[in-house]
Amino acid sequence: MEATPNHTQTVAGWAARDSSGKVTPFVFKRRENGVDDVTIKVLYCGMCHTDLHHVRNDWGITMYPVVPGHEITGVITKVGSNVANFKVGDRVGVGCLAASCLECEHCKQSEENYCAQVQFTYNGIFWDGSITYGGYSEMLVADKRFVVRVPDDLPLDVAAPLLCGGITVFSPMKQLNMLEFGKRLGVVGLGGLGHIAVKFGKAFGLHVTVISTSPSKEKEAKERLGADNFIVSTDPEAMRAGSRTLDYIIDTVSAKHSLGPILELLKVKGKLAFVGAPDEPVELPSFPLIFGKRVVSGSLIGGMKETQEMMDLCAKHNITCDIELIKPDYINQALNRLAKNDVRYRFVIDFTA
Amino acid sequence: MEATPNHTQTVAGWAARDSSGKVTPFVFKRRENGVDDVTIKVLYCGMCHTDLHHVRNDWGITMYPVVPGHEITGVITKVGSNVANFKVGDRVGVGCLAASCLECEHCKQSEENYCAQVQFTYNGIFWDGSITYGGYSEMLVADKRFVVRVPDDLPLDVAAPLLCGGITVFSPMKQLNMLEFGKRLGVVGLGGLGHIAVKFGKAFGLHVTVISTSPSKEKEAKERLGADNFIVSTDPEAMRAGSRTLDYIIDTVSAKHSLGPILELLKVKGKLAFVGAPDEPVELPSFPLIFGKRVVSGSLIGGMKETQEMMDLCAKHNITCDIELIKPDYINQALNRLAKNDVRYRFVIDFTA
Repeated sequence: MEATPNHTQTVAGWAARDSSGKVTPFVFKRRENGVDDVTIKVLYCGMCHTDLHHVRNDWGITMYPVVPGHEITGVITKVGSNVANFKVGDRVGVGCLAASCLECEHCKQSEENYCAQVQFTYNGIFWDGSITYGGYSEMLVADKRFVVRVPDDLPLDVAAPLLCGGITVFSPMKQLNMLEFGKRLGVVGLGGLGHIAVKFGKAFGLHVTVISTSPSKEKEAKERLGADNFIVSTDPEAMRAGSRTLDYIIDTVSAKHSLGPILELLKVKGKLAFVGAPDEPVELPSFPLIFGKRVVSGSLIGGMKETQEMMDLCAKHNITCDIELIKPDYINQALNRLAKNDVRYRFVIDFTA
Repeated sequence: MEATPNHTQTVAGWAARDSSGKVTPFVFKRRENGVDDVTIKVLYCGMCHTDLHHVRNDWGITMYPVVPGHEITGVITKVGSNVANFKVGDRVGVGCLAASCLECEHCKQSEENYCAQVQFTYNGIFWDGSITYGGYSEMLVADKRFVVRVPDDLPLDVAAPLLCGGITVFSPMKQLNMLEFGKRLGVVGLGGLGHIAVKFGKAFGLHVTVISTSPSKEKEAKERLGADNFIVSTDPEAMRAGSRTLDYIIDTVSAKHSLGPILELLKVKGKLAFVGAPDEPVELPSFPLIFGKRVVSGSLIGGMKETQEMMDLCAKHNITCDIELIKPDYINQALNRLAKNDVRYRFVIDFTA
């Protein structure tokens, strides 16, 4: 690609150069702070499964070098002349979105995430033609429309994963009316997304069942996260006993699996929100779908307005991500552990040192 | 199974005896006409794909001998003492349902099809413990709650397939609000179900696109059924051109396939009603589902109240099934042709001779 003339700011970051997925220090250029931009000193960045998929080119779409990271929190150091809603020193967050058309029906309803022109915080093409680089870096320039405020009550490290992991579960839970007091919610997969879904469920007074392949997670799910029930998905008897008991399910699993046994847990007309991104198709057998008139609903992160709403609700209900804070020199080990789901529940890179 | 004492009526029918799927004449017993029953002289019976799956035991659930047939029309010849809404001589239809619990929330809302105790017109277990036998027979005894009236304007032969094929597409179309004037509907698969879906779509003023693997069906879809557009699903360019153009899709295909390319045709938040029953799981890739916030909704036939509503609407809008009328001695050839989708669009067995 051509050099973009106003990309004059030198930034230190961390990038993967090829599909080996190894991340190494990388010095690159970011654009000048434009009239609609804010410059953010990055303090924390969560490590999402999507980062892993990108560094390893699992989806075949990676443009190397790739600077991952889209769960970014930090403090504003500069604002453009058109920026009225942020000022220097503000605590802010940037999630997956870097740009959208701003004009389509989706953008007008703050569903920028479904804009056909949407561009992501890394491995995207910005308005000026440059490839976007993400939050594994000391500094970020972001358009004001794609920045949210982090309430004072939320520490910036445990808030970072809310920018992707949090909104990914909150958006469908809200839009499919899953946050109804007293309803029965199933959360499939207890990882970065799942554990936040459990917290949202409990904060809104739902009965929460965790469905997991790992019996070892039962104690933690119940005692630490407050889940009411735990089903080991590989136990046919337990799955059968749970048949037709749940109103909603949020499926956060990003490995290939069958939706059949999971759908059987739903009552008739029950809804499953599918938010994972397995690189192979999941299996959808027809009988559990049609006999229970069940619904499988896809959802991808969330819009900017609801991301802010979620942040404010998290502050109000004291919902934060359980994290393991790491230094940048641990990124590769963390990626390897992430590939084995060996983290409770999110790695967050600490850039404050 | 034990003999049931009041099964004293001798009936001539046609049954498959094993998974070879060959159908031969079969004489069997039906129950006496009970106080809540009506006896029906069967005049026509449609041949549904489900019949084929059952005679060949594709789903592994067939209890032989099986008398298939759940698209039954005929005339009442006897009514029980508790039957007030039907009288001898009435033109009626019986679909897939033979019994349900009558007491659960689903039964109370006339969603008997989703009752956990639902029993089907054939290969089911009736209240008295007997195995149900379907409409490939000269006579049927049915509980009054599972019988609908066929309006005088609807000929009984072309109305028969509405009892399963018709209600299977009508129920999700109505419940997912797909019958909105001016909206854009896709119909995947132009067979027994698909061609009725096209007719419903056109009757309610929708723009209808047929999506099919068979280029040869384009002329007929447009000229005879009134479809507005036709996309060959194996043509990647045509599929790409159709991306994000449809509000709703009804997928009637009962062979294994991927929902991915089909979902791409839907606008953001578009809904796909899944009504087929492939014996292998379909593939659901995550990206078309999550990036478009799309919805896959299962649906199984319909309840009794909406089946009557559909019948009345079909009479009003002159919606009937396109059929090939056959004699009972052609059933085996018809089943073989059905397996190859070689029928436009439904075989109906004529028992009037």
